Amino acid sequence: MSIAELISKLNTLGFSESAFEHAAVDTVDQWAEALATVSGVPSDYVLTKTLIFKPKQPKSAPIAPVVVIAKGDSGTNSTLLGKELGLKDLRFANDDVLTNIFKTSKGSVSPFALGNVPAENVEHIKVVVDQALLADGVGKIAFHPLDSTRTVFIAPATLTSFLESVPGLAAFRPIDFEKLAAAAPAPKPAAAEKKPKKAAKKEVAEVVGSAKLGIEVTKEGDFAKWYQQVVTRSEMLDYYDVSGCYIVRPLAYFVWQQIQEFFDGGIRNLGVKNCYFPMFVSSRVLEREKDHIEGFAPEVAWVTRAGSSDLAEPLAIRPTSETVMYPYFAKWIQSYRDLPLKINQWCSVVRWEFKNPQPFLRTREFLWQEGHCAHLTKDEAMVEVRDILELYRRIYEELLAVPVIEGVKSEKEKFAGGVATTTVEGFIPTTGRGIQGGTSHYLGQNFSKMFNVVVEDPEATGAERPKLFVHQTSWGLSTRTIGVMVMVHGDDKGLVLPPRVAETQIVIVPCGITVKHTDEERRKLYDACLDVAHQLKQLGLRVETDLRDNYTPGFKFSHWELRGVPLRLEIGPKDLEKQSVLTVRRDTFAKQPVSRSDIETAIPALLETIQKDMLVKARKTMDERVKIVLDWENFVPTLNDKCLTLIPWCEREECEEQIKERSSRDSLGDEPEDDKAPSMGAKSLCLPYNQPAEPPIVPGQTKCIQCGHEAKRYALFGRSY
Amino acid sequence: MSIAELISKLNTLGFSESAFEHAAVDTVDQWAEALATVSGVPSDYVLTKTLIFKPKQPKSAPIAPVVVIAKGDSGTNSTLLGKELGLKDLRFANDDVLTNIFKTSKGSVSPFALGNVPAENVEHIKVVVDQALLADGVGKIAFHPLDSTRTVFIAPATLTSFLESVPGLAAFRPIDFEKLAAAAPAPKPAAAEKKPKKAAKKEVAEVVGSAKLGIEVTKEGDFAKWYQQVVTRSEMLDYYDVSGCYIVRPLAYFVWQQIQEFFDGGIRNLGVKNCYFPMFVSSRVLEREKDHIEGFAPEVAWVTRAGSSDLAEPLAIRPTSETVMYPYFAKWIQSYRDLPLKINQWCSVVRWEFKNPQPFLRTREFLWQEGHCAHLTKDEAMVEVRDILELYRRIYEELLAVPVIEGVKSEKEKFAGGVATTTVEGFIPTTGRGIQGGTSHYLGQNFSKMFNVVVEDPEATGAERPKLFVHQTSWGLSTRTIGVMVMVHGDDKGLVLPPRVAETQIVIVPCGITVKHTDEERRKLYDACLDVAHQLKQLGLRVETDLRDNYTPGFKFSHWELRGVPLRLEIGPKDLEKQSVLTVRRDTFAKQPVSRSDIETAIPALLETIQKDMLVKARKTMDERVKIVLDWENFVPTLNDKCLTLIPWCEREECEEQIKERSSRDSLGDEPEDDKAPSMGAKSLCLPYNQPAEPPIVPGQTKCIQCGHEAKRYALFGRSY
Repeated sequence: MSIAELISKLNTLGFSESAFEHAAVDTVDQWAEALATVSGVPSDYVLTKTLIFKPKQPKSAPIAPVVVIAKGDSGTNSTLLGKELGLKDLRFANDDVLTNIFKTSKGSVSPFALGNVPAENVEHIKVVVDQALLADGVGKIAFHPLDSTRTVFIAPATLTSFLESVPGLAAFRPIDFEKLAAAAPAPKPAAAEKKPKKAAKKEVAEVVGSAKLGIEVTKEGDFAKWYQQVVTRSEMLDYYDVSGCYIVRPLAYFVWQQIQEFFDGGIRNLGVKNCYFPMFVSSRVLEREKDHIEGFAPEVAWVTRAGSSDLAEPLAIRPTSETVMYPYFAKWIQSYRDLPLKINQWCSVVRWEFKNPQPFLRTREFLWQEGHCAHLTKDEAMVEVRDILELYRRIYEELLAVPVIEGVKSEKEKFAGGVATTTVEGFIPTTGRGIQGGTSHYLGQNFSKMFNVVVEDPEATGAERPKLFVHQTSWGLSTRTIGVMVMVHGDDKGLVLPPRVAETQIVIVPCGITVKHTDEERRKLYDACLDVAHQLKQLGLRVETDLRDNYTPGFKFSHWELRGVPLRLEIGPKDLEKQSVLTVRRDTFAKQPVSRSDIETAIPALLETIQKDMLVKARKTMDERVKIVLDWENFVPTLNDKCLTLIPWCEREECEEQIKERSSRDSLGDEPEDDKAPSMGAKSLCLPYNQPAEPPIVPGQTKCIQCGHEAKRYALFGRSY
Repeated sequence: MSIAELISKLNTLGFSESAFEHAAVDTVDQWAEALATVSGVPSDYVLTKTLIFKPKQPKSAPIAPVVVIAKGDSGTNSTLLGKELGLKDLRFANDDVLTNIFKTSKGSVSPFALGNVPAENVEHIKVVVDQALLADGVGKIAFHPLDSTRTVFIAPATLTSFLESVPGLAAFRPIDFEKLAAAAPAPKPAAAEKKPKKAAKKEVAEVVGSAKLGIEVTKEGDFAKWYQQVVTRSEMLDYYDVSGCYIVRPLAYFVWQQIQEFFDGGIRNLGVKNCYFPMFVSSRVLEREKDHIEGFAPEVAWVTRAGSSDLAEPLAIRPTSETVMYPYFAKWIQSYRDLPLKINQWCSVVRWEFKNPQPFLRTREFLWQEGHCAHLTKDEAMVEVRDILELYRRIYEELLAVPVIEGVKSEKEKFAGGVATTTVEGFIPTTGRGIQGGTSHYLGQNFSKMFNVVVEDPEATGAERPKLFVHQTSWGLSTRTIGVMVMVHGDDKGLVLPPRVAETQIVIVPCGITVKHTDEERRKLYDACLDVAHQLKQLGLRVETDLRDNYTPGFKFSHWELRGVPLRLEIGPKDLEKQSVLTVRRDTFAKQPVSRSDIETAIPALLETIQKDMLVKARKTMDERVKIVLDWENFVPTLNDKCLTLIPWCEREECEEQIKERSSRDSLGDEPEDDKAPSMGAKSLCLPYNQPAEPPIVPGQTKCIQCGHEAKRYALFGRSY
């Protein structure tokens, strides 16, 4: 049914006006806001929402959707509604139902879609109408006839007669949602905890007009779903049709490029040069270093065919490049004069994990940088390992405003085949879990012995100088950085980007223009926005000016908030008069007017402040949640309080196993391990370089809190990603 | 045998001195130069070379190497020697022979290695000694006892008695290489043409002291081998153990990064944003666009296994990303307001070609950039196609100093699935072949129809707006650029880099220091070098200072010439006095002193001149070799003169087939198609935008020179890569 057809049909039902066009809207508030700028709309009307649900039913049964036509602000709880209708597991219907049965799509659902339903489906549909729409004194009811850029205002009677006019449609059922809500028992917190989790696993259809633009859950309420919605709806990332692989969209790739630029500068100063090695590895070479490959073998992807012919020997896609590169180190390093050899490559690697993939955090293909160096001495190598770790720390803290804890990995957690792994560990407050941020390895001589990377001892003299195996390092940082940043800073409105890595640092939005303003006034306002934008771009700032006149300011605010733009400048007619702009911080939503004359100093300063404050805030949270624990009894409870622990530890691998096992068993709950499972065991994240001063570890006295053996150092233990 | 053992053994044979240490050398000339700086060496001596050959023999037969001990400047032609000794196909022995039989390695071969040969091998060894070393009046003969940093001077008698002292070694055979050469018939040019070609396919062992540092063939003499040696020995690239894949080493990767930086800036101005799509494609998606995939199917690499388990559905590794990206274009483009959508990614793609791979030019995995855009109108799309092509032209001409011809591909040669392909075509003078440099495609609506990328017509009004399929473009440039640059500019001494893309633009080499100079003088000279380097770095120039005191200036010159460093500054004691430096251009070898006071202006200017001159020179060569051909008779002869042709052409696909077929048949020679085969047929490279003015194509009159149909335009035809 086209809108023309619809209108003419409505005309036969006592509707005499036509549809009003306006800005696209995605919430009832924005709808109201949009209509405010349209002339000729009724002085008084009721906004609505139309929801399509589906009960749980056998696959064989004909689909029986429930269409709910409700007042915009009525609470339409699907569980309560299901009970009321005697339907099991009422949920939002999915796209197929919208497309195939109602011939409509997300953002365009309305009661009028009932006119599109084929006869064979109509009979199974239940229609519910909110009493609040039928109550006396209700004048006009607003609906989107076709999409969210149009509105018709009809009388309740027109609605009901439309419903009656649909051939084969059962009589609608009026429901008082207010009563319904009031009658419901208060949900148990536990239940409340679980529900969103279940929902997270379902494909959710749309509330009228909301084209899935905003975030539908809270960060605290359903973190997993929140994260998924933030990364996708902010347009950082999109899901891909190969599971475990994701599309890194420009907003996220820009962050990565900022990291690349910073890190490339840092390693250039260390004398590291960029290069590129092939992605394919022959099994022979891949399996050269046994311990090393054991760590990766189960995750290696194999190419066995090219075109239509099988390869003589299957080829692995690099999971990392130690064994790819080191045979060539042996070839290139002929003398100690060829040392140090320092190279790095930016590439993607493939690790076919079978655990649940997660955008940025755990993906089967991911982008990273991997550095590989060979040194004459261990000391030289160790200095470099720490220099690189320091660069990683700075990337997290100075670019991403994410605090990290530096330290050494335990024997159990270190890099397979290496001697020691240093790491920067992040913390995700919402889940209380730690996350490995980046690692810098001292490989010792394991690989050089395996691949025979040797030089003559320069110290030795005479004809035959003894051979020395070189000391190697490798270090890597991946796009996981982006995921950590999102998890730490994001809020219920979406992404929050630190200014230094934000593709758009400032968005300028003209405000306060209504139908009462002239085009002249509008143009003056737009020009002012463009002037300010120009002024700021001259300073090298990254600025967007949102002059789309088919969207309301409110729509634009949510649009850019969702995308994490650090600073918004609002300019309205009044600001023009006052020669000022209103600044709104994304991180705190603090508003502050800035005089036009101060812009060039005030705005850059404000961005710096935001960058600084974001780190300070995140560090404060982390500091409060990293707890020194001195006896086992408090270990798991501390984890359950979403904290990480610092414990006096013996550093024995056996003990680490026990800690994981015991902390898992001792935990409450019997859920399978997943993102929210409190039953997950704890592992050592690192032995921090920065050890707590109080209480000190007294050699020979202080005991490991788990096994009672002598404690060597404080270790950071926690649940982790 | 250690050198100590060797010396004591030589002492028993009448040798009384010990070994002299000096700079490492890789040629006889450098050896002489090095010895000149060592005090206490004999006033008169003869330099030598020791070569180890191997005849063609059945696998089963015991290896029978031939050791040739010759005067440094004697011509030791292996073919003639083979004839003389009655041995078939005498070639340099490979590494295994050196390592396993002689217990020595490249750079360290000497007659004394015979002392290491196991008894069971000794009996099969033939030793040849150059008469010139045994002639009367020969005083001392110089050998490297262990490696090229040491020299012993022994009497001919000591050499012969050493040879006699080796248990089981047959008596050596004296040969007069001068006579041998004189007696040889002048080789037929054809034969001369062919020999290096065969050799190119063999692994070649080493002349004493030459650690495979220089280029052993001339660019004109054996282009294929020259190219292979230049890219590998300059350390731009290394061969990898997976055929068709190569390691892009820092020197080459730096060039690529310069290209990236330039291009990223260019596309940013066009509003293109960078992103990253997964490398894997499901067959379903890959095969969506039939014409398109037909072009790639035979070359697609398939992942079928992960860890030890087979994948449910095999996954292709992207050969290019049209079908990877466009399903998401359909998702992201909901309205004309989402247009234009402009994205680009830097990644590697895999095309498993079975033709001979060639470094940079044809590799199974290669680095490239691929841009993909969607526009509302064809005009918009076409403008972009040309904007990008212009950026490609500028990369070749302004960065790489390589002239290109811009034009449109023929129907036969255009991108599979697209509507029109624009291209920049390069020219390799040495082979007279064209090479596709980069392509920018107008895809029309083929893909948008296939993937349903549609928007509502913004022009149309009313409720139901007609759908428009978007107009798409895609464009790509790869690391092939680097290969073209090498082929065009390189010379017999190795790589020649344009200053703008050279990792090292200037190398400073201290000269003229001999044993006569004091350490004080040496330090003063070195300080001067470092001062100049510092001065130039301040200007943002990329400078190396080669103060290695274990290498001779001559060694350093070839080292940096091989690596293509555009400008060398020589500073010696005399220059210090004159307060000047000597500049030596890599492109012309022109030498010119520059006063220290002028350095900051003169050097940057000189680099600019080099950059400019390299393009001018290359363009002049190309212009002379692109010939207008007006009748078929001259077509193939022109190709055989290593030229490209501009011919009036009918633009019919059938005719293009015939041209390829006829030009191949008409050609001389019956060799199989390969890099040097003159029998290769010609194909159309492009229809140049810049058409010859004279003689003009007269519509209705001018005929296609091949088929006689009406000619539409001049087309660029030639043999190509």
